[in-house]
This record gives sequence, C-alpha cells and structure tokens, in this order.
Amino acid sequence: MTERNSTAAYGALKTRFSRLSALGGAQAVLHWDRATMMPEGGARARAEQQATLSLIAHETLTAPEVTDLLASADETASTLGEWDRANLAEMRRVHAHATATPSDLVTRLSHQKSATEMIWRKARATNDYASLAPALDTLLSLVREQAAAKAAAFGLDPYDALLDGYDPNRRAAEIDKLFAELEGFLPGLLSEVMEKQAREPGALAVTGPFPIALQEKLGREVMGILGFDFAHGRLDVSHHPFTGGVPDDSRITTRYDEGDFTESLMAVIHETGHSLYERGLPDEWRTQPVGRSRGMTIHESQSLLFEMQAGRSAHFIGWLAPRLKAAFGGEGAAWSPENLLRHYRKVGPSLIRVQADEVTYPLHVILRYRLERAMIAGELSAADLPAAWNEGMKTLLGVTPPDDASGCMQDIHWPSGSFGYFPTYTLGALAAAQLFAAAKTARPGLEEALGQGDFSPLVQWVRENVHGRGSRLTPDEIIVSATSAPLGTAAFRRHIEARYLSR
Amino acid sequence: MTERNSTAAYGALKTRFSRLSALGGAQAVLHWDRATMMPEGGARARAEQQATLSLIAHETLTAPEVTDLLASADETASTLGEWDRANLAEMRRVHAHATATPSDLVTRLSHQKSATEMIWRKARATNDYASLAPALDTLLSLVREQAAAKAAAFGLDPYDALLDGYDPNRRAAEIDKLFAELEGFLPGLLSEVMEKQAREPGALAVTGPFPIALQEKLGREVMGILGFDFAHGRLDVSHHPFTGGVPDDSRITTRYDEGDFTESLMAVIHETGHSLYERGLPDEWRTQPVGRSRGMTIHESQSLLFEMQAGRSAHFIGWLAPRLKAAFGGEGAAWSPENLLRHYRKVGPSLIRVQADEVTYPLHVILRYRLERAMIAGELSAADLPAAWNEGMKTLLGVTPPDDASGCMQDIHWPSGSFGYFPTYTLGALAAAQLFAAAKTARPGLEEALGQGDFSPLVQWVRENVHGRGSRLTPDEIIVSATSAPLGTAAFRRHIEARYLSR
Repeated sequence: MTERNSTAAYGALKTRFSRLSALGGAQAVLHWDRATMMPEGGARARAEQQATLSLIAHETLTAPEVTDLLASADETASTLGEWDRANLAEMRRVHAHATATPSDLVTRLSHQKSATEMIWRKARATNDYASLAPALDTLLSLVREQAAAKAAAFGLDPYDALLDGYDPNRRAAEIDKLFAELEGFLPGLLSEVMEKQAREPGALAVTGPFPIALQEKLGREVMGILGFDFAHGRLDVSHHPFTGGVPDDSRITTRYDEGDFTESLMAVIHETGHSLYERGLPDEWRTQPVGRSRGMTIHESQSLLFEMQAGRSAHFIGWLAPRLKAAFGGEGAAWSPENLLRHYRKVGPSLIRVQADEVTYPLHVILRYRLERAMIAGELSAADLPAAWNEGMKTLLGVTPPDDASGCMQDIHWPSGSFGYFPTYTLGALAAAQLFAAAKTARPGLEEALGQGDFSPLVQWVRENVHGRGSRLTPDEIIVSATSAPLGTAAFRRHIEARYLSR
Repeated sequence: MTERNSTAAYGALKTRFSRLSALGGAQAVLHWDRATMMPEGGARARAEQQATLSLIAHETLTAPEVTDLLASADETASTLGEWDRANLAEMRRVHAHATATPSDLVTRLSHQKSATEMIWRKARATNDYASLAPALDTLLSLVREQAAAKAAAFGLDPYDALLDGYDPNRRAAEIDKLFAELEGFLPGLLSEVMEKQAREPGALAVTGPFPIALQEKLGREVMGILGFDFAHGRLDVSHHPFTGGVPDDSRITTRYDEGDFTESLMAVIHETGHSLYERGLPDEWRTQPVGRSRGMTIHESQSLLFEMQAGRSAHFIGWLAPRLKAAFGGEGAAWSPENLLRHYRKVGPSLIRVQADEVTYPLHVILRYRLERAMIAGELSAADLPAAWNEGMKTLLGVTPPDDASGCMQDIHWPSGSFGYFPTYTLGALAAAQLFAAAKTARPGLEEALGQGDFSPLVQWVRENVHGRGSRLTPDEIIVSATSAPLGTAAFRRHIEARYLSR
C-alpha cells in the first residue's frame, strides 16, 4: 500500500461518513416529525421509511470495502493531524460496533425490540407484567447474544461491551466504584435533608391555571437567555420531552400541564442544555464521527448542568421568580424566590425515576444498573424481575411499588432493548456537578451573572471545554481536561450538601 | 433463464422498488418540513440530507443489476396478472427515464438547476433579467442535452421525451391540436364573458379583516366535508400552497391573507383535491410504481375538479355562503351566494398566471408551451425570451407586461429546469371538465349533494374511476375509461359557456 493510496482511503472514508451523517440527519427529521407532527395514520409508512434508512445506513457502514479502507488508512494515520487521527479512530470504533453484531442478529433484534416495546405499552397500561415477561425474556436472550458477540470482538466483558455503545470507554468496574461511594453517603444525606425539610416551613402552593400559551412564551424567553438560537432550532410539544434534529437545526420539545408550570419550564432548560451541546460541536467536523457528541454521560452532563446546577440555583431562581410572577400575573408570598426554591428542591423517596429529585435519583439508577447487569450475566430472568425490583426499591429507597406499572415496567429502556444506558444518567449528574464547580472556579462572577439572567459565562466555558471537543477525546478525557480531575462523586456530594443542608 | 429465476427477478425488483418508495417518502417529509417547519439556519444540513437521499435513490434505481433483473422478469411477464404486468411496465418506464440521462449530466443538471434558481430569485426581485439570461442559457443547453439523450433512448422527439416525464405517453402533436382548438374559441368566449360581466352589477366588496385562526378553522371544516381524513394528514402554512407527504400521511399547505379569505380557501380545496387523489391510490400497491399517481395532468385534473368544477359551482357556493357569513360574522348583501359567486368568477386578462381566472388561464399556458418548445428546439435563446414573451402576451391576452418580473420571470419552472410541465395545467383543466361532466351523468343528484355540502357522490366516483387506477392505465386510458371519450376541449368549452354565459 502506497502512501498515496492510504491518503485516498481516508478521503474515501470521509466521503462515506459524510453520507452516513446526512442519513442520520434525515433519520432525525423523521423521528422528530413522528413525535411532534405526524398524524397517527402515518405510522405504517413512517416505520417503513425509518427502517429503510436504518438498513441503508447499516449497509453503508458495514460494506466489505470499509474494512479494507480502514486498514489502508491506518498506514498513514501517523501523518495525520490530531483531529483527523481522532476521526479515523472514531470511524474504527463506530465500524467495530456495527460489524460486531452478525447481520441476521441485527434483524432479529430490531423486530424483537419493536414487538416487545409494543407489548410493554399495553402491559404497562393494564398493569399486566405476565403478558410482558415472555417477550422480554426473548429480547433479553438476543441482547445477551449481541453482548457476547461484541465482547468477543472487543475483548471486553459482555456488559462493558454494551456500555461502550452508549458511553465510549466506560467500564462497569469504574461504575461499581462510583456507585458504591454514592450508596455509601446518599442514604444518610437523604435522611438529613428530609429531616431538615420537615423542620422548615412547607412550600406555599403556587396555584394556576397557567395557560399553555404563556408557558410556551416563557419557555422561549428562557431558551433565548440560555443562548438557544431560533434561527437554528425550534420548540414544540411531544409526549416526552426530547432533543432531536441536527446541530444546525436543533428541535427540542416539552409538554405542558396547565396546573403546573414548573415541570415544563425545567424540561425546556434540560433540553436546551442538550441542544446547546449539539449546536456547539465543532462546525468544521460536523459531517464526521469526530464532530459528534461524546456519548450519553457527557450529553446528560450538559442537560443537568443547565437544569440542575444552574437552572435551580438560588442565583437564577432569584432572577426568574419576579419574571414568573409577572408572566402569570401571580400575587403574594408564594411567588417569592424562597418559596419557588422550595418547590424546585423538594426531596423524598418516590416510585418513579423521571419524577425523582436529584438526591434520590441516583438510587433509582443504582437499582436498574444492578438488575440489568444481573440480567446480562444470565443471573436474573424476566420472570424474577418484579420481585428483585421491589426488594431493591425497599432496600435503596424504603418504598415498595404497589404494582409493576409503577415498578419494573415504568421505563421504556429494557423493553426497547437498551441495556447499559441507565448508568449514564447518574454519571451525567456527577459530571455536571464537577463541571459546574470547575466553571465557577474558572469564571469568577459566573453565579452572579446567573443572578442577572446572564448565562453567557457558563455557555462560553462549556463551549470551550466540552462542546467544542466533539469526539476528539474520550468522555473521561473531556472531564479531566475540563475539571483537572477524573470523574468522581466528591463534587456531587458537595453540591447536594451545599444546596440542601447549608444553614 | 428459467421461469423460477424470472419470477425471482420480478420479486427482487419489487423489493428494490419498495425501498425506492420508502426513500421517496422520506424525501417527502424532508421537503414538507423544509417548506413549513425548518428554521432558516437548517438549510445547509437539509440540502445535504436531500442530496444524499436523491443520490442513493438514483444509485438504487440505476444499478447495473436492475437492467438484468428487468430483462429476466420480462420472460415471464405474460404469466403475471394485469396489475403486476402494469407494474413491471412502469418499473421499466421509470428505469428508462433514470438511465437515459448520463450520470455526469445528471450531476451537472442538478448543480445548474440550483444555481439558476437562486439567480432567478434575486433577478425576479430586482427585475434584472440580464443577470438571469446567461445562467438560463447554460441550463437550457443542459436540458436540451438531456432531451436529446432521452429522445435517442426512447425514439421520440426531444420535447416529447421531456413531456413523457411529467405526463406519460403524452405527445406534443396531440397538445398542438387541443391548444389550437382552445385558441380558436377562447378569445371569442373571453370577449363575450367580459362584455356580459361589464353589463352586470359589480361585486359588492366583502371586507375583512378575516382573522387567520378563523380562516384556518373554516379551511379544516371544508377539508372535512371534502373527505380529508385528519388521521392521515395535516394542514399547515407555507409560502406557496402545495401537497406533500405520502398517501398514508398527506400534508397540504395554504397561506393566509387577513384581508382576503377567498384565495386561501380555494387553495385549501385545490390541495385537498390533490391529496384525495394520493389517499385514494390502491393501498395494496402503495410501495410499487403501479400504485403511484399517474402524472401531472391527471393530478391537476383532481385539484381542479374540486376547486374549479365543484368548489366554485353555484350549488356548493350556495351552501358555503351562509357558513362563510356566520364564520366571519359578516352582514349584508355582500355575503349572498350571488355576490360571492361574482367574486369567484371575475374574468379578464391579467399578467400573472397563478392569479388568472379559468377562462384566461389556458392562454397563459399556450404562450409558455410555444416558447418552451421553441427553446428546446433551439429556435429561441434566453436572450430573446423577453421580447417573444411580451409579443405573445399581446397577441394572446392583449396585455403587455410592464417589466420582466411580471413577464417572463414570473414562474419558477424554467429557472428550475422544468420544461414540458406547463401544458399539464391546461390539460388538467380540460380533463377536470370532462370528468366532472361524466361524474354528473353517472351520479344523478351529485350537484344537489354539493348544494348540501355533501361531496361523497363525487368522491366515490373519482375513487372508482381515477384514484383507484393508480398507474395501471395511461393518463389517456384513465380519461377514456372514466368518460368514454378521449381527452378533448368540448367539455371545457361547455363548462365555460354554461358558467359564464348562461342567462
């Protein structure tokens, strides 16, 4: 292989990955439209469109010549610049994940995921776990088959091989350590916080109705303050809030409850955090793997940085409260910053992960992490899941679900085949606390700026230290370079103590 | 080639065309989103997505093995059922159009179309034809190259070869005959109508404002009456009204003017006519070429059938008028059916095609048809177009454009490379008149039903006689089978005389 051929091979790979990027962008539009715009009768045609684009993308990525091109390109890798080298490495990683699973297994998994998810929707609505268990067992066996195939290809433990697909280079051994630390101090902290909150005056009710049009207007204003550019994105409504689209055209969604504005507003801030990350990715690499966001832990760290760290800070709520009061024509002490903070900071064990506060949330994740590891290891079957779930809830949170719908059937992840995803929620929360602490140190006055509704110091810092990195570094390298320390639990612990136990 | 292999070849073709159908559906979503939802900053990424899907579709259709599969499948064509035989023929037609143009010419055309369209947007806005002429000449030479290539492949005249892409099996010789007939009687009819309208009282002004929310509500109600199923479609807003999406999920658009509700409402009825056609295509063939709509003449016949024939009939306006009055809180004689009909039936020469009434509209099309034939034949250059245009307007309509912006630069068709499309507007109008006459004969009481806001007799008739045919028949065969006569001008002439000269 001559050097010229090797250079040409890398060029051919870039062209191919540009095409994959455009296909991914088209898929993002189809997905967004399905969740926000599509009439229900469009489902059959949309499923065919999405399946076709997925298949074409898979064929494009796993075509035999890609293996040859990667081998050729490797020969001059050392002559490439830093970003191109990282790009080539990321191509290899994406390719390895796509080719590790035999294509017939890809097809079987795809069908079983769709089927199980549909059964789950009905089973959850009717609280009928027995109707879900067989499909979930079948899906689990296929996921284990996939995990084994990836494990063999990568020389990893099966669970680690799945994890790597959501959070590159993340290993369970590290999660075990971090989660053990959390489990060590969180239950005690939780008791302390609950005791303190029990001694304090309860939150005054903030009563609505809060018209949707006003909530939406407020959401857009807050998005603008956070730096969302409406020339490059939209806010719409969907059943579950999400961030979709592409960096140039970011589509975030929320949902509205006329009786409570707090959930929708925080969802908007959360999704804006995700969106700013995508929008801040390096523009010159936007069609290449190295220009993509760096996995779910870093992504979640950005949404939680804006929602939990900055968005629920006393500084920002102090700025926000009078504006909320004016926006909704509110009156009285219920609209004081102090009272609104009480609403945004209520802590206590609950059954449902997505409604949990930031103190108990990691305990919900630890439960799921342990159960899914056991399932992937073949030590826990679908039939035994409800009992293990309820026992874990009792141990970790002290509550027992009254039924499986509010127990082990509450999340879509497992019925849709996502194993290895859950830990990234809590790793993201740890990263968010660590990043926010570093940002405050690096940019004195950052919190005072939040108190004036000015997010620009925070946004500039994350653009430089996280967003602009793309996928050039591993998630842990991003955190180390931004915070001068490996991902740990200390910043999160300090954050919880400062927010919930001070004074 | 054994029969089994031949059957397998046809099966492989069906699979491939299913994929093309799904790709086309995805493209339709991207196109609709771009026109209705996309923030302007998303344009670059969207262009890449659309170009990538177009390229993949082109590769899928023109891959060498398709030629082999078509040849193999032909061997058992005679053993196939009627629909499968028509499907195979249509595959061959679509494939022939795609492969007739050399791929480097496809690329050059694509770039020159985009460039010329962009120059046109600016040139029209600044009334600067000189800045458009060179690009238009370059584009014209590429289109002529394409026409020559298709002509050689199909054994057709170059203009016929282009025409065939918009209206299968249509030939210019037939259009010449029909348009000569129109030119024979329309100018005289036009004078008579204008004299009659000059003698009659003028239309009383229907004054607004007409709030957009009320116009939209009314539009949706009328769509529902026409049979539009909102479980399989949406109404939105775009700069120019259009019908997009797929048969299962039909996306129509309109635009609103708070000072005038009439244009938006008729646009909604027009687009609903297009949409009902797509929705009524044979469901069991929906992923195959034979299940597609049958070219632009038949498509336009469906929109004009609902807008011009049924939508502006005295029966329907008689039903609609009191509802318009109530919807907008109108008062007085201006809201009488008679007065609204005067608004919907004003006739007179004008400069702009899209604003023309149905009597003068064909004259606008005849002008364009003659000019584009001369351009494709190499007898008219871009430099000479304005003079030829103005002369033709004077001859056919008796008016002279004050500038090129309202003259030969008014339409997007030529700057975007569409030559051979214009005649289908008027062929569609002729077909609509002929189909409506046949429907009235076949379904006595159809007009009385319209007078009660009931479109179901009309919808049922076109479903059976047009929509359900898909592409099994040629456009002319559809018209003959539905009306027992070849496409002609007689029904259109009778329609104009009855509507504008009776009493």
